[in-house]
Amino acid sequence: MTLVLTELPSSTQEAVAATRERVAALHAELPRNELVVWTAGNVSERVAATDPAVPGLMVIKPSGVSYDELAAENMVVCTLDGEKIDDGTPASLVPSSDTAAHAYVYAHMEEVGGVVHTHSTYATAWAARGEEIPCVLTMMGDEFGGPVPVGPFAIIGDDSIGRGIVETLEGHRSPAVLMQNHGPFTIGKDARAAVKAAVMVEEVARTVHISRQLGEPLPIAQEHIDSLYDRYQNVYGQHDQKG
Amino acid sequence: MTLVLTELPSSTQEAVAATRERVAALHAELPRNELVVWTAGNVSERVAATDPAVPGLMVIKPSGVSYDELAAENMVVCTLDGEKIDDGTPASLVPSSDTAAHAYVYAHMEEVGGVVHTHSTYATAWAARGEEIPCVLTMMGDEFGGPVPVGPFAIIGDDSIGRGIVETLEGHRSPAVLMQNHGPFTIGKDARAAVKAAVMVEEVARTVHISRQLGEPLPIAQEHIDSLYDRYQNVYGQHDQKG
Amino acid sequence: MTLVLTELPSSTQEAVAATRERVAALHAELPRNELVVWTAGNVSERVAATDPAVPGLMVIKPSGVSYDELAAENMVVCTLDGEKIDDGTPASLVPSSDTAAHAYVYAHMEEVGGVVHTHSTYATAWAARGEEIPCVLTMMGDEFGGPVPVGPFAIIGDDSIGRGIVETLEGHRSPAVLMQNHGPFTIGKDARAAVKAAVMVEEVARTVHISRQLGEPLPIAQEHIDSLYDRYQNVYGQHDQKG
Amino acid sequence: MTLVLTELPSSTQEAVAATRERVAALHAELPRNELVVWTAGNVSERVAATDPAVPGLMVIKPSGVSYDELAAENMVVCTLDGEKIDDGTPASLVPSSDTAAHAYVYAHMEEVGGVVHTHSTYATAWAARGEEIPCVLTMMGDEFGGPVPVGPFAIIGDDSIGRGIVETLEGHRSPAVLMQNHGPFTIGKDARAAVKAAVMVEEVARTVHISRQLGEPLPIAQEHIDSLYDRYQNVYGQHDQKG
Repeated sequence: MTLVLTELPSSTQEAVAATRERVAALHAELPRNELVVWTAGNVSERVAATDPAVPGLMVIKPSGVSYDELAAENMVVCTLDGEKIDDGTPASLVPSSDTAAHAYVYAHMEEVGGVVHTHSTYATAWAARGEEIPCVLTMMGDEFGGPVPVGPFAIIGDDSIGRGIVETLEGHRSPAVLMQNHGPFTIGKDARAAVKAAVMVEEVARTVHISRQLGEPLPIAQEHIDSLYDRYQNVYGQHDQKG
Repeated sequence: MTLVLTELPSSTQEAVAATRERVAALHAELPRNELVVWTAGNVSERVAATDPAVPGLMVIKPSGVSYDELAAENMVVCTLDGEKIDDGTPASLVPSSDTAAHAYVYAHMEEVGGVVHTHSTYATAWAARGEEIPCVLTMMGDEFGGPVPVGPFAIIGDDSIGRGIVETLEGHRSPAVLMQNHGPFTIGKDARAAVKAAVMVEEVARTVHISRQLGEPLPIAQEHIDSLYDRYQNVYGQHDQKG
Repeated sequence: MTLVLTELPSSTQEAVAATRERVAALHAELPRNELVVWTAGNVSERVAATDPAVPGLMVIKPSGVSYDELAAENMVVCTLDGEKIDDGTPASLVPSSDTAAHAYVYAHMEEVGGVVHTHSTYATAWAARGEEIPCVLTMMGDEFGGPVPVGPFAIIGDDSIGRGIVETLEGHRSPAVLMQNHGPFTIGKDARAAVKAAVMVEEVARTVHISRQLGEPLPIAQEHIDSLYDRYQNVYGQHDQKG
Repeated sequence: MTLVLTELPSSTQEAVAATRERVAALHAELPRNELVVWTAGNVSERVAATDPAVPGLMVIKPSGVSYDELAAENMVVCTLDGEKIDDGTPASLVPSSDTAAHAYVYAHMEEVGGVVHTHSTYATAWAARGEEIPCVLTMMGDEFGGPVPVGPFAIIGDDSIGRGIVETLEGHRSPAVLMQNHGPFTIGKDARAAVKAAVMVEEVARTVHISRQLGEPLPIAQEHIDSLYDRYQNVYGQHDQKG
């Protein structure tokens, strides 16, 4: 019993259309910020609930389509079980192979409205060693409130990637997790915030890596990390919407 | 007795024209993905056989022409012995100096429809040490199904480069080989797939290099590599054509 | 008692308008030179004093606005206490969260007309180790006249960042300081010169870092550093305005 | 007794005009290939001798002008003593501060028609250690015919930079020299060839650096280097003009 987009309430159809526009546009940030090559990487966003009778939905990139061809009309609509609904995209456009992981996050973390996955170079390099990124930059204090944690090794095929993401993020302030041997997943209140976290995790992964190449970065005291994080999330945070 | 393009069957002429368009367009991916500088690097594609009376043909970049000037009409047509046919390009446009290596691959690997050669930085850095890239990333499991192997030292002048490529690739799942002190050669079912492999081999060469700068990446168990490779080639693979 | 831009002398209003144009345009140099990601980084310029009755003013980037949207009309005007004046920008555009540090520099270093702050990768990597960049390149002799010094760890909230910048720069020829665990701040006679210093500090941070990865760079004798610096500031310097 | 361009034979004026076009256009290759930041770097070309009564001339970039503003009409014409002639550029446009070094090369190496100087990152990093780049890549055999040598430490003010370049290059096949603590200078039969050498020296400096970060690159036997160099300069070389 597949959901059919054109049979859903018009408020839902409008929310889906707006989400598709946003998700398609945000994909351009991934190559622009050099987080992806070829067709790798994906952005998704939860569709705002406008009608209690409609199950939760998300919009995600189709699988294997080049970044130049990512228009709103070929973004795929799925349920939070990761199943594509009858959404008007050609049958050949199947959702990203990481859809199950995104869906698991939405299903288990109510506050999350956007998810991004990349294989960005430096973050993936830390992930390949299974090593968390220590919080040695004030911008990490601001954005991550501590280290960027590592999630378990997991391969596609069941819900083990999704579970690994959720279980790791629930114990940290960080909106990014480095899945071992795989790469970063990031979350945010919407897709834009998750994309920002994907940009920032690569930035801090690169800067801390380079710093450590010639010695040990100086630690930042926990009280300063707390202070940076509180201020950024509460004071600067209110203006962050514009960014 | 040089072949003359305009004397070949019209089906062959059409196949050549289409191949030239594709090969010219794909060359833009090499600088775009930062795999080449100046006039280095080359893409070729086998011309689909449309007439049993016509010997095997390939289309390749001319030698020493800048990437800005690579139009379909100056792509060179060669036999699988690496000889330019009378193809309508100016006599001054000779085929890439790597043509013999490409031709050897087509002549000896029937399933190969595209070949790419670059000196991309990180892949060439592994090649200069004669060291294979270990499979420590899930995306390597997906795309390469194991390590990226090293081929022998060989210099231009006989068929030793071509032989080195073929003998090395026949023992591996990888569509990429790092020719020692030289650089990567990649293969695919068509030129687009070989270009994708050229992009991916540089990506994994860079990521694994950076990971190893600060410690040893964690190995992935062979059974997981097998599982990643099987799934990607069989499930994801069917959609890969779009990429 | 907030200053109102439209009530200030017309000479001041004109100076503000011209400064806004320059500061907005110069922000484009930060992403162009790969010194910033997302909305990080900021440029400010002191408004030329045209009327003794008007207190000192500066123009700075608004907080959290993307680089694509940085037009002259949303550059924020502040006093040298870091307070936004009633300047015609929407109330939602608050000045950069680094405004207090910029203002402190203008208030305490009369000769400074421009300030830039970034988290550029290599400069920040040195800052995270709290290590100054040694003067081992002739271009460092030219531009910095010695090492690039490190300033103290300081967090946003009082004037400790501004004080750290001023106290460190006063003991050095360098127009750049690496604030520990944070990133570079640079100064100049105007915003353009401070942007140039931000570009150059990242360039020398990167080059010296890479040089040191494989051994120790050769020192340059102090007399040669002095000679390079004197010549560049005095002979080449006169033409530097065009730059 | 300053030379006046408009009083020189028309054949010389035409040669100057054509050289200015080429030199201006080639400067675009420096930022495009990421060899320079801000206003650093310079390209020059010898003006072809068309009249035995006219002393040798060269065209070079003006000092401190941004890459966006480098039009043919502001390229500066100098004698091989490095003196600007009355060439129609505004008096404010003085020749690059490296003009004396370029002029010395033209005056002492008859076969050289083009000179380029940059501070490109990896080449400068080797220069800062005073370490030659070993010939461990087949493309180095092709282009450099051996290692890239290091020239002496020398500072602007007399002819010591020019002498250092000439004395070092005369003992090597390499068209590039790494001036200690300073950066690369490259030569060629014309400016285009010198720009190519500037691109290639950075490419091999980067690749060999990265290779050595994780171990020692494998040497290439001298006979193979000789064979690569001979073939490339003699066989491939004839087509190199097109590149």
